[in-house]
Amino acid sequence: MTAPGTTRAGAGDTRAEATAVSDQRFDAVVVGAGSGGLTVAFGLARTGKRVAVVEADAVGGDCTNVGCIPSKTLLAASRALAERGLRAGDPGWADAARTVLAFVRAKRDALREREDHEVAVEPNLTLVRGRARLLAADRVAVATAGDGAAERVLVAPIVVLATGARAVTIPLPGLDADVATTNATLFDLVDPPRHLAVIGGGAIGAEMATAFARLGSRVTLVEAAPQLLPAAPAAAAELVSAGLRARGVAVHVGAKAVRYERDGGMLHLETDGDAVAVAGVDRVLVAVGRRPNVDGLGLEALGVRVGRGGIATDRAHRTSVRGLYAIGDATERAKFTHAANAQGRRLVRHLTAPWLPLVPEGDYPAATFTEPEVAQVGPSLAALQARYGADLVVTHRVDLAALDRGYVEGHDAGFVEAHAMRLTGRVLAATVVGPHAAELIQLLVWLQRRRGSLWQLSRHVVAYPALSEGLKKVADAFVFATLPKLPRELGAYLRHRWRRR
Amino acid sequence: MTAPGTTRAGAGDTRAEATAVSDQRFDAVVVGAGSGGLTVAFGLARTGKRVAVVEADAVGGDCTNVGCIPSKTLLAASRALAERGLRAGDPGWADAARTVLAFVRAKRDALREREDHEVAVEPNLTLVRGRARLLAADRVAVATAGDGAAERVLVAPIVVLATGARAVTIPLPGLDADVATTNATLFDLVDPPRHLAVIGGGAIGAEMATAFARLGSRVTLVEAAPQLLPAAPAAAAELVSAGLRARGVAVHVGAKAVRYERDGGMLHLETDGDAVAVAGVDRVLVAVGRRPNVDGLGLEALGVRVGRGGIATDRAHRTSVRGLYAIGDATERAKFTHAANAQGRRLVRHLTAPWLPLVPEGDYPAATFTEPEVAQVGPSLAALQARYGADLVVTHRVDLAALDRGYVEGHDAGFVEAHAMRLTGRVLAATVVGPHAAELIQLLVWLQRRRGSLWQLSRHVVAYPALSEGLKKVADAFVFATLPKLPRELGAYLRHRWRRR
Repeated sequence: MTAPGTTRAGAGDTRAEATAVSDQRFDAVVVGAGSGGLTVAFGLARTGKRVAVVEADAVGGDCTNVGCIPSKTLLAASRALAERGLRAGDPGWADAARTVLAFVRAKRDALREREDHEVAVEPNLTLVRGRARLLAADRVAVATAGDGAAERVLVAPIVVLATGARAVTIPLPGLDADVATTNATLFDLVDPPRHLAVIGGGAIGAEMATAFARLGSRVTLVEAAPQLLPAAPAAAAELVSAGLRARGVAVHVGAKAVRYERDGGMLHLETDGDAVAVAGVDRVLVAVGRRPNVDGLGLEALGVRVGRGGIATDRAHRTSVRGLYAIGDATERAKFTHAANAQGRRLVRHLTAPWLPLVPEGDYPAATFTEPEVAQVGPSLAALQARYGADLVVTHRVDLAALDRGYVEGHDAGFVEAHAMRLTGRVLAATVVGPHAAELIQLLVWLQRRRGSLWQLSRHVVAYPALSEGLKKVADAFVFATLPKLPRELGAYLRHRWRRR
Repeated sequence: MTAPGTTRAGAGDTRAEATAVSDQRFDAVVVGAGSGGLTVAFGLARTGKRVAVVEADAVGGDCTNVGCIPSKTLLAASRALAERGLRAGDPGWADAARTVLAFVRAKRDALREREDHEVAVEPNLTLVRGRARLLAADRVAVATAGDGAAERVLVAPIVVLATGARAVTIPLPGLDADVATTNATLFDLVDPPRHLAVIGGGAIGAEMATAFARLGSRVTLVEAAPQLLPAAPAAAAELVSAGLRARGVAVHVGAKAVRYERDGGMLHLETDGDAVAVAGVDRVLVAVGRRPNVDGLGLEALGVRVGRGGIATDRAHRTSVRGLYAIGDATERAKFTHAANAQGRRLVRHLTAPWLPLVPEGDYPAATFTEPEVAQVGPSLAALQARYGADLVVTHRVDLAALDRGYVEGHDAGFVEAHAMRLTGRVLAATVVGPHAAELIQLLVWLQRRRGSLWQLSRHVVAYPALSEGLKKVADAFVFATLPKLPRELGAYLRHRWRRR
């Protein structure tokens, strides 16, 4: 590895001679200054490596600029507005809603400035503005936008791709750019739409439908799958759907948007062969998925393997080309800010201490900040049954209303559910729906990622009365169901495990 | 052990002959139908044992009737009232506050009825109403209140004392029964006091000051120790104090109530030698501590060892007398509903499967539902330093405001703090202050009770953006502080561990 500050422009190598002037050598080049890229860049820089990080857009990536930060600020601020009881049409409402949207931008901008500053003052870290293209596994050309002629070449033995992803757009006839928006432009709205149609009922769509309904927009939510949050259990999706409807959101599942007419703001849907027309739609948020940013990077020419879901990587985050790594949304393996961050940490550890064993990456948890909140970890029940056989997977569920804390606070929706291995009680997957579900699920995430069991969880002690008791009650339900028929369970476990092998 | 339904009245034993008619034989007698007692009674009954549970007062014990259930219902309902923006003196306020207090009683009564019903329908479980007195380790006399002549004698090879605790009263000159209240009578108030003085700034005092301030009462909180929540870290107590003051509560720490004058409702305090008079106090809540219910049980005659904090027990919950067990608030070892419950579960496991190893009981977590909430597990820093030496205990703390979720939601108070063993990172104690702290702390409780480490915690993945990230950041802080100077840390650890031995 090149020592910091030295160059290797060799004598007699004319190509090297020719580029020596414009080439800049680093210990590592990170392409993309989002959540994953910054984790790697700071991590390596703090171990003394000279790191260049290349970014064409804003530092902080989607999360800071057009993702989690503005969306969660909007969710928090719109909830505060709704709790004040202000409704669309009330005196003061329009100003209040506009203030919320301006507040979201102010918070985003302040964080962006802080991150810009942190990058600027970090020793060993150089921010290179422009669009990156790989010339070789160890050579990255950076074209400065607006000035195609100026191109810098960064050379490093380690190159990390952390280019992220962006919203998929759909060709909806009649939908023009002034009406359509994605998460990339949504937070630039000065006023809430009168009637927002959200196409896509995944996490982003369901959260933004929640937020704009609180801001007083009429909201129509359209999802092609038979349920909202297609990756969540049906019972969770049902509660989210009920929560949205209680806020006045019109929820259409199994529905496809087919056409938009500017005249009258007509959004035409097709659902089960029927045609439905929604009138007065003045803004359409397209949130039907995200695709990895892999174009224009020169991956094909280098022979980097790219799958349908993104850049293919192994568990050390290596691409198919030696010296070239990839993490985060750009890869097949991670689709969350916290996953990009976790992969960044893994990669730093692996690059700085390659002798440490590489622990399995494990499943990443997910949280959706709707009303109620939904948090999950692990595969779906169907996927677990396909993997282990239906006879080996047991499910236990406790409603929050059955807990003492649920009783005193009057929670009538929400639950804790765990899928576990028969007999051993190993936690395979879990879902929590309810207030602060993303916090409540932590212990189940811990157990799922570390192959812990419900036997262990049943010995946990929860300070009374907390909703976390629900986790323990799920474990108790497993213990009470298993303990009295232990010999039978053991027999069934061995029989079905055997059959699988 | 006597088989269910059989008696052992032996021939030729005149004493046995004489009592055979009135004696009732069971497999176990549980004295006290509170949280701990019911856990044992149901647990044993469900394994097929015939169990008698003796209760002089209401089923459900303090928790259901005069403790957690009404207090947490009051906290939730009063928060909802405060969020509606209703203040004392507003039109509709008096009715709303009265409705809240009636709602608390209705919830309590409904739960009490449910628990009465659950006890009544449980096979193998017999509720015996009356006051219990031990005749021998296996004989319990039950006197029915109001009819001293009627006494039943229950005989069982296992007797479990779960008699709980009650509020300590203080002899405050001038304070009559119609002004004084404890948690036992507080929830019978039909209207909130105009000015409530709370004597005792522990968990109960601080929570009830919070609730009644939300209901519109003027509240004065008096604590003799130099801080509220004397068992919590000073930084946590400071935030609770600030939260109460922001609600208008007058907080006096290092202050002692010395006298009450009915005329003008004057409560006289002494603080640092100065005299302070608080006027207009129409109700005084005494919440200065709880004492175990051990009187009148006949413990002394049997030679049962009772310490200052309650009945002495070993880790199998045995008293000093064979066949006699004790759990919960009546003992020296547990002062929480969840501790009584956990001990009850341990005892059931131990009695039904005595061959299973007895795992250490561990520390019990605690939660105080003030604004902000405070959750803790493990000894104080001072106690840890006394046990391990100051050089072996490291502390790391992260403010919620420094987290992304804290940033977007604008949390300006609250933190996560952990005390850990130097080098190994073993979690020794932790405190969380902030919204839903009692939920957030779970993973730290888990680690503390299982001797887990901050090294492990730093590999946890938290779905972004949740406040639980604070736990991980505390672990990261430890790792970043330890990793770069590992050899020095190892040396220091060995040196100080060695010295201790």
